[in-house]
Amino acid sequence: MADGNTGLQLRSLIKKSGELEISLQNVPTPEPGPDEVVVRVEATPINPSDIGLLIGAADVSTAKASGTKEAPVITAKVPETAMRGMAGRLDESMPVGNEGAGRVIKTGSSDAAKALMGKTVSMIGGAMYAQYRCIRVSECQPLPEGTTAAEGASWFVNPLTALGMTETMRREGHKALVHTAAASNLGQMLNKICQKDGIGLVNIVRSKEQADLLRKIGARHVVDSKSPSFMDDLTNALADTGATIAFDAIGGGRLASQILTAMEAAINRTSKAAYSRYGSNVPKQVYIYGTLDPSPVEINRAFGMAWGVGGWLLFPFLMKIGRADGQKLRERVVSELKTTFASHYTKVVSLQEALDPVNLAVYAKRATGEKFLINPNKAG
Amino acid sequence: MADGNTGLQLRSLIKKSGELEISLQNVPTPEPGPDEVVVRVEATPINPSDIGLLIGAADVSTAKASGTKEAPVITAKVPETAMRGMAGRLDESMPVGNEGAGRVIKTGSSDAAKALMGKTVSMIGGAMYAQYRCIRVSECQPLPEGTTAAEGASWFVNPLTALGMTETMRREGHKALVHTAAASNLGQMLNKICQKDGIGLVNIVRSKEQADLLRKIGARHVVDSKSPSFMDDLTNALADTGATIAFDAIGGGRLASQILTAMEAAINRTSKAAYSRYGSNVPKQVYIYGTLDPSPVEINRAFGMAWGVGGWLLFPFLMKIGRADGQKLRERVVSELKTTFASHYTKVVSLQEALDPVNLAVYAKRATGEKFLINPNKAG
Repeated sequence: MADGNTGLQLRSLIKKSGELEISLQNVPTPEPGPDEVVVRVEATPINPSDIGLLIGAADVSTAKASGTKEAPVITAKVPETAMRGMAGRLDESMPVGNEGAGRVIKTGSSDAAKALMGKTVSMIGGAMYAQYRCIRVSECQPLPEGTTAAEGASWFVNPLTALGMTETMRREGHKALVHTAAASNLGQMLNKICQKDGIGLVNIVRSKEQADLLRKIGARHVVDSKSPSFMDDLTNALADTGATIAFDAIGGGRLASQILTAMEAAINRTSKAAYSRYGSNVPKQVYIYGTLDPSPVEINRAFGMAWGVGGWLLFPFLMKIGRADGQKLRERVVSELKTTFASHYTKVVSLQEALDPVNLAVYAKRATGEKFLINPNKAG
Repeated sequence: MADGNTGLQLRSLIKKSGELEISLQNVPTPEPGPDEVVVRVEATPINPSDIGLLIGAADVSTAKASGTKEAPVITAKVPETAMRGMAGRLDESMPVGNEGAGRVIKTGSSDAAKALMGKTVSMIGGAMYAQYRCIRVSECQPLPEGTTAAEGASWFVNPLTALGMTETMRREGHKALVHTAAASNLGQMLNKICQKDGIGLVNIVRSKEQADLLRKIGARHVVDSKSPSFMDDLTNALADTGATIAFDAIGGGRLASQILTAMEAAINRTSKAAYSRYGSNVPKQVYIYGTLDPSPVEINRAFGMAWGVGGWLLFPFLMKIGRADGQKLRERVVSELKTTFASHYTKVVSLQEALDPVNLAVYAKRATGEKFLINPNKAG
């Protein structure tokens, strides 16, 4: 509906019966409160973090299309063993889409809200896979003149995660960092930030192709965990950069432990400290922020006692640093959206096209270099 | 030598050939600097942390006695596979003994040093298995009138570790804590502190006997990890206390992961927060401070993203909180040496008796309830 009073919204539902159902609902657009605006959403990316909510634990190979062209429905089966992990969301129809951008078409009564009328803004806050989004002003960021909604759609999740890593590094007293699964979109962005800011970055990848890709965009330290010389290469890169903090997207297996072991070896190479049975005093940290490998993390403590492994997530990090410091990061992102934080998309789809099983099969793979953008106001 | 100019000092040496040699050396006592004093050591405990340095990776069952009655020597073999871990200390004759107490018999020229003349003091700083110890005033703590050297000998390692746990709990924003291998001397002390200070404590033990022992000294929450209802019992105790930080002496295996899983379950039992794929936002931490099980730590992340596992050691903790706050903890300990922080010993031995293979076989087992005290000035 062009007036914005109602619009389509994508919903993901996992039923107690073990069936995933993705559909489009026609929902009324809420009237904006004083500090809210209504945005006509024109661009919203399908990030790996969105796919988690969109598909849940369903088996994509069982996906079936039904419904009509205007109101398509996808159903798929959730394996019984995976249902326990879904307990928190059963029989609840959930909107999807963390971030997006579009034009403000209606505002609340506050000056801050009114100031956004007609502007193109980036947004964060969920439920972006919809034609209209009523949202608080504080969750909008006006885009600079000449920046399109498509350019501003991926302004939050990847850019702030990458900046959150270098910020965490600084705030916790480290001077360089390690990143795994480093050829991802996020990893490439992190390389651009580190090159611009002069931060040492050790990229860990799992193939020669990924290593070549990163070297081509200027990465100085790239090590391949499949290489027989991995531990030596990693230790050399850690000694070169002085990196003592790592962000790991993989999670399962021994990689976190290997990184800590190599850090300790790199520290001991230059240390003049006396013998201690407890290892070096230099704090070494691995933050796990993803789950590419869901198997258990195996930590064989061959690196003294000054170590930590833990979970890291963007939103708790932002809560910790507070709004004022978070706002500086947001402003940096929108001012560098065409350079450091530029995103590239394989395909722009409508909401209906996002529910096409052929497209679903592609974006559900979460492959590096394959990224879809939804334009909910593109004709289906 | 009664004048204190020279005295016996215990030394531990691991040779490149793979032989451990423990011996007594007659060494000159250094002249105290302005801020130093000389203490005639009268009591110094054999803690598990001392045994690590004293014996290293040697196989105690191969121990042989030689030398004379006045100057006994123990030798033992270090298994070849364990020699790599000894690389940092090879062919270096090392003094042993973290903490002790005795009488000040000589002082440097500063007022602070002179004020200690004739006093009985507790000490920290290594090389306590000796008849005389020249030491900085800042590493001495005068004992209250009526407290003996034997009562003040174990003033630092266990008491400050236990206080370091409750302090870390408070400083990191938790309100109750979990302790594993909880029937140890340290664990019993932690129970006394928590009872006195009104802190919720969940004790995890590995037998019914250990559980009974703790209940007898007033522990309210004791769970047995060998019980079939362990995970339920643990979750109930965590829900009761609200404990979200644990100190684990075991290290290897799945215990840390089980604790985090039970913490998350206890949190979700009362939480009214909306569904999140990332689990609760409540930070959950396990600090590993011991290695009773040297196998890898296995972390199966069934508890969201707000978690951490890491090493914890007393001395880095004390460096972090600074001397002024550390001094408050020291003063609390010496004022409660006969109550909260009382230690009990199986046997008091001379330096020579500490080198008797029969005694070595007993204290090297690090058994709960078996603790030896050395009086280096007891006639051998």
